[in-house]
Amino acid sequence: MKLTCSKSDLLNGVTTVLKAVSTRTTLPILECILLQATSKGFKLISNDLELGIESNVNADIIETGTVALKAKIFSEIVKKLPDNEVEITVDNNNYTTIICEKTKFNISGFSGEEFLQLPNVSKDTYIKVSQLKLKEMIRQTIFSIALEEIRPVLTGELLEIKDNKLNIVSLDVHRVSIRKMDFESDFDDISVVIPGKTLNEISKILEPDDEKDVMIYFTDKHILFELEESIIVSRLLEGDFPKYEQFFSKDYDTLIKIDKDELLRSIDRAALISRETKNNPIKITIQNDSMIITSNTDFGDVYEEIDIEKEGNELEIAFNPKYFIDALKVIDDEYIYLQFTNPHSPCIMKQVDGDDYKYLIVPIRIR
Amino acid sequence: MKLTCSKSDLLNGVTTVLKAVSTRTTLPILECILLQATSKGFKLISNDLELGIESNVNADIIETGTVALKAKIFSEIVKKLPDNEVEITVDNNNYTTIICEKTKFNISGFSGEEFLQLPNVSKDTYIKVSQLKLKEMIRQTIFSIALEEIRPVLTGELLEIKDNKLNIVSLDVHRVSIRKMDFESDFDDISVVIPGKTLNEISKILEPDDEKDVMIYFTDKHILFELEESIIVSRLLEGDFPKYEQFFSKDYDTLIKIDKDELLRSIDRAALISRETKNNPIKITIQNDSMIITSNTDFGDVYEEIDIEKEGNELEIAFNPKYFIDALKVIDDEYIYLQFTNPHSPCIMKQVDGDDYKYLIVPIRIR
Repeated sequence: MKLTCSKSDLLNGVTTVLKAVSTRTTLPILECILLQATSKGFKLISNDLELGIESNVNADIIETGTVALKAKIFSEIVKKLPDNEVEITVDNNNYTTIICEKTKFNISGFSGEEFLQLPNVSKDTYIKVSQLKLKEMIRQTIFSIALEEIRPVLTGELLEIKDNKLNIVSLDVHRVSIRKMDFESDFDDISVVIPGKTLNEISKILEPDDEKDVMIYFTDKHILFELEESIIVSRLLEGDFPKYEQFFSKDYDTLIKIDKDELLRSIDRAALISRETKNNPIKITIQNDSMIITSNTDFGDVYEEIDIEKEGNELEIAFNPKYFIDALKVIDDEYIYLQFTNPHSPCIMKQVDGDDYKYLIVPIRIR
Repeated sequence: MKLTCSKSDLLNGVTTVLKAVSTRTTLPILECILLQATSKGFKLISNDLELGIESNVNADIIETGTVALKAKIFSEIVKKLPDNEVEITVDNNNYTTIICEKTKFNISGFSGEEFLQLPNVSKDTYIKVSQLKLKEMIRQTIFSIALEEIRPVLTGELLEIKDNKLNIVSLDVHRVSIRKMDFESDFDDISVVIPGKTLNEISKILEPDDEKDVMIYFTDKHILFELEESIIVSRLLEGDFPKYEQFFSKDYDTLIKIDKDELLRSIDRAALISRETKNNPIKITIQNDSMIITSNTDFGDVYEEIDIEKEGNELEIAFNPKYFIDALKVIDDEYIYLQFTNPHSPCIMKQVDGDDYKYLIVPIRIR
């Protein structure tokens, strides 16, 4: 193999595929990046068996071939090369020479044949989404995936297309997060559960650009994201995702409209006191035109008051402040609705105009 | 005690004094900030027994008094308060109320009398230095203080005034760093050793502003830095600082002039290979008009070439690349001199015009 390419193109490719390189593994080949020069072009490929990434790099190919290089040292070398043309040559023993200006590295590589190929994903079923929108929807839901693996399916997010909506949903025992967007598909409805890690990595690769789209292909076992210069393949999680809609009651006894930033800042301050003794809740009291937030510990207490518009009953209810803070941080609206039934039923946060999102938070019982 | 002040003034003061609050201690009072309102004004004070800081805060004092508050929770509360006027009230049981807009915190405090006063430093001997210059001189030398405490005096930096120069010096077994500036003092020569921790904290408080000065007062045991709104007191380290000048030979067999950035980038790259097997040195070969840097391990090798101007002999010598990188990173000049005697004697880095700095690095013996 022999080729030349620019340092900056090479670095872009390496940075992208690094996201699917195993760092802790007993299989050395999983710590590698595959360099593949064929008549079709130059590609970098990584694969940690859950997630795989391929990235195209503009190059002048003098001789085709492949080699697998340890990702850590190869990426560090590329990062520190002068900003100029890079020449990469691989001999029959996978010994790889990297030359740029007056710098010359020789490093040992592994045979490209040892590298585990990415799964083949058929392109029969697909959708096209704005990169910006998908990136946002992941950011606005990913915080509430379950971390423990008791029910593996909850460590991922549901992506479904149903009733001309694209929904992304995550949930754990304390809360549910839903983001929706209008969406028309040419195919049947879709419902898959994507691993949280895949979504974290893909959201770093997606550009915050509404003009750019990503193509997403689905099979029973895999999902494939196709971008301009790279593709990302991930396995899907197996198991039934809970029927989340059943948690959202349409009935309520109290509905308030509140300034989102004021609520976030007040709960953030109240959490300072509640955190002092672990897991002490904050108490929310809804009066006629104000919400009072308090927290008491042996160490001290805090009192916060916020103006609200209220419909329905007065109420006292307690929460772990973290679950409120996580959801409020990803909402961009100025005002939101909070809907309550009683002190033992969840609070539902929703949009004042529209239904782009719904968040559900389970309360803590007050003694 | 009762007073009002602005949130931003209070936050500035708290941020400054936080630097001398103990985080791991068995004495709870050392984890506190003292709030002291007297007829002279409002002060925040911290003291971890090695370092003490006092910061003045503009305030409207309604009733004088003192209280010691846990620094962690008090600073977090102040940080998150609305950007408005803050009212602080302390009752006879040191119960402290903090009110800002519709936010109200009550927290328990300790009696101000339990707080350990800062040492009294006489103001007989002093110097005045630009804050920017002092900040720079600390940054350019602090990296080579000794970390192990076998000789405690080496965990600090020498500050000396001698022959109309102000010198700051640090050294460990592998290297010496010296920064100098022209300086005329009205007093006798000064030579004190300041703890590394003190210098780290003071350099964060110093402003990068050549128009602003810091007054420094010296006694046998203590040093006091006086800034516009705060003073910092530190104990000094005891013991004799090594006579560092003796390490710098005036004679040499090889002198080269080299581009500092090129040298830094080349050694940085070569270190990638040398790091792969721990503590493998880089080898420097000085030829007629070029420096060759190489490193070989089982894993691979690297070759770097840099143009130089040379006076004297050719040479082969080996170093731990980290010691070169640390020093080169803090030098701002475009070109520097490197002076060598033989493969077993230190390399001395110095300025091409002037003697603002000197760095000495001990080589590694090549097999």
